[in-house]
Amino acid sequence: MTENDRKLRVAITHGDTNGIGYELIFKTFATPEMLELCTPIVYGSPKAAAYHRKMLGLNSNFSIIHHADEARENNLNVLATFDDEVKIDAGVPTSASGEAARQAIDRALADAQAGLVDALVLAPVDAANVPSMTGYANQIAYAADKLHKSAMNILTNDCLRIGFVTENVPLRQAVNGITLEQVRERATALAECLKRDFRIFNPRIAVLSMNPVVASQDQQLFDDDTTLFGPFAAKDFFANGTFKHFDAVLAMYYEQGVVPFTMIGQENGVLFTAGLDVPCAMAAGYSTFDGAGKGESDEQPMRNAIYLAIDAARNRANYDEPLANPLQKLYNEKPDDGERVRFTIPKKRADRLTPEELAARDAQEMAE
Amino acid sequence: MTENDRKLRVAITHGDTNGIGYELIFKTFATPEMLELCTPIVYGSPKAAAYHRKMLGLNSNFSIIHHADEARENNLNVLATFDDEVKIDAGVPTSASGEAARQAIDRALADAQAGLVDALVLAPVDAANVPSMTGYANQIAYAADKLHKSAMNILTNDCLRIGFVTENVPLRQAVNGITLEQVRERATALAECLKRDFRIFNPRIAVLSMNPVVASQDQQLFDDDTTLFGPFAAKDFFANGTFKHFDAVLAMYYEQGVVPFTMIGQENGVLFTAGLDVPCAMAAGYSTFDGAGKGESDEQPMRNAIYLAIDAARNRANYDEPLANPLQKLYNEKPDDGERVRFTIPKKRADRLTPEELAARDAQEMAE
Repeated sequence: MTENDRKLRVAITHGDTNGIGYELIFKTFATPEMLELCTPIVYGSPKAAAYHRKMLGLNSNFSIIHHADEARENNLNVLATFDDEVKIDAGVPTSASGEAARQAIDRALADAQAGLVDALVLAPVDAANVPSMTGYANQIAYAADKLHKSAMNILTNDCLRIGFVTENVPLRQAVNGITLEQVRERATALAECLKRDFRIFNPRIAVLSMNPVVASQDQQLFDDDTTLFGPFAAKDFFANGTFKHFDAVLAMYYEQGVVPFTMIGQENGVLFTAGLDVPCAMAAGYSTFDGAGKGESDEQPMRNAIYLAIDAARNRANYDEPLANPLQKLYNEKPDDGERVRFTIPKKRADRLTPEELAARDAQEMAE
Repeated sequence: MTENDRKLRVAITHGDTNGIGYELIFKTFATPEMLELCTPIVYGSPKAAAYHRKMLGLNSNFSIIHHADEARENNLNVLATFDDEVKIDAGVPTSASGEAARQAIDRALADAQAGLVDALVLAPVDAANVPSMTGYANQIAYAADKLHKSAMNILTNDCLRIGFVTENVPLRQAVNGITLEQVRERATALAECLKRDFRIFNPRIAVLSMNPVVASQDQQLFDDDTTLFGPFAAKDFFANGTFKHFDAVLAMYYEQGVVPFTMIGQENGVLFTAGLDVPCAMAAGYSTFDGAGKGESDEQPMRNAIYLAIDAARNRANYDEPLANPLQKLYNEKPDDGERVRFTIPKKRADRLTPEELAARDAQEMAE
């Protein structure tokens, strides 16, 4: 590691302070290997953290900081996003516990925008329990709106990645509103995410059908774009394993994708979000308040979310790097460069590329 | 068995004559036990049957008949539904092969209406390949329309039964058209089918949600009806096994139910249809022309369809019997009455009961 390199900084929000967030975080970083992979910064409250630690009978250490730049490697850093006392009542949704979650998210988003952290991982929050998130389906929708960005959510597990053309709207509204243009736009966003965050150079995306918008007569959609295949009827696509031949699936509406996804298995499921300032990940399947304070929650899904966020941050930096310094010799790391290289990135983060720059870089890579 | 009893007569349509129908039928009745269970009447063409038998190198015997009343027990009866020569070109859809399927269906429906057969099993047909079925999604839709009846289709396998509020329409049309009244009506039809054809006295039906029609605010639907539970979001309902606690599931639109169904496993899947004159069943998952003439098709799904049709015919007769002769002593058979009784029904079929009679009989059964 050169002195220009540092470990990736992963912002982890503490979630609802009456939920299972701190338990998941403490357990996740109880194994020293996790601190080798990244420098965690928990966006939360040292007081709440200490309370949960005591309640759960854990002996985890953490460092209290007040700014992301104070974060120390090989430490579980807890950044105080507010100073108020938080009354903890494990398992009980309150406005205060919900707002505590929201304050942590706000600060983490600001730090991501300022380039102070490289990836974002979200602990469980029920948006319905947060007064200032009223009207948002979930914390991702809140975050995207706050940043004035369009989020591209992808459900991922060991064998499947699913993106959606419509989300967070009633089915009737979704199916009435979908246009072919919208399908094309979301497919492009999904393809860019696969290339940039998942490092898949020539992604193959299966598009599910939704009669009458994406039906056989829309063959032009597929002729125009070498990344898109289909349309596939959802009925057999999942049951007969066709999905395994593709890097990702584009579902037309949420239920079309999420039902097969949960049936295939969401134990290792992570909701990945592109379109914010840094890669963002959240474990699928946690229930915010179930089992809070009991110490029985499985932290593995949280760990998986962190792995994915780290991989994506690394992929994205690697993807964005060449055009940031176009005159330098390009050094493409090989997969066997080892863990140390794999989980570090150059200190200077590449600026986000414009679509034109991305296209130019793609052309360059294709030519090499 | 008294002389008033005879084996159940099962009408089996031959399907598309260039498809896999005859292969499935011959293989199904190659085991003598099948002829113990019922008297099969293949609605088709003796010439086509002979051609397929020769092509497949089978040595099956069958009896040629011209009227259902000529059907002999312990024989595979083939009823000539037309006299024309049929050119067989295995695996190739032609108008003639499709129309041959339709002629068999027409005759089987007429015989079912006339009370000459007790159950109906359909071999595979692609409605798109039958000129006179233009505009129908499948042969069931054609049959129901021809009989001026409303079909209630239920997908069944070893652990799941799913009915649908809307079928055979584009999703947009389905979700725009659904009303709570329609949900109630289909739930009632599903419940009657479970009682009458599946012999489930107090069925428990899980209703899937479809925001905004069947959402939490529609609690009245469930308060009004002791058979209905929910609404359940499809997302977790299938993945976490909740469906196992119910006798059937009511899906709002086809894809909502058929995708989980095929993922759970349609090897043993049968599409059961209530609402025609006799119980009707069709194996799910066959492809009409795939592998035609090769002798490699698995007949087990066809056999499962026949089992289900027989069970339903028996259940229905048993259910309808008491009120047909209200002054007689009611004799309720026990499950251990054995195969012989299990697969016979009284010669005189009970007339279909009115809803009032059904209600009266239910009350009587409850009181016993």
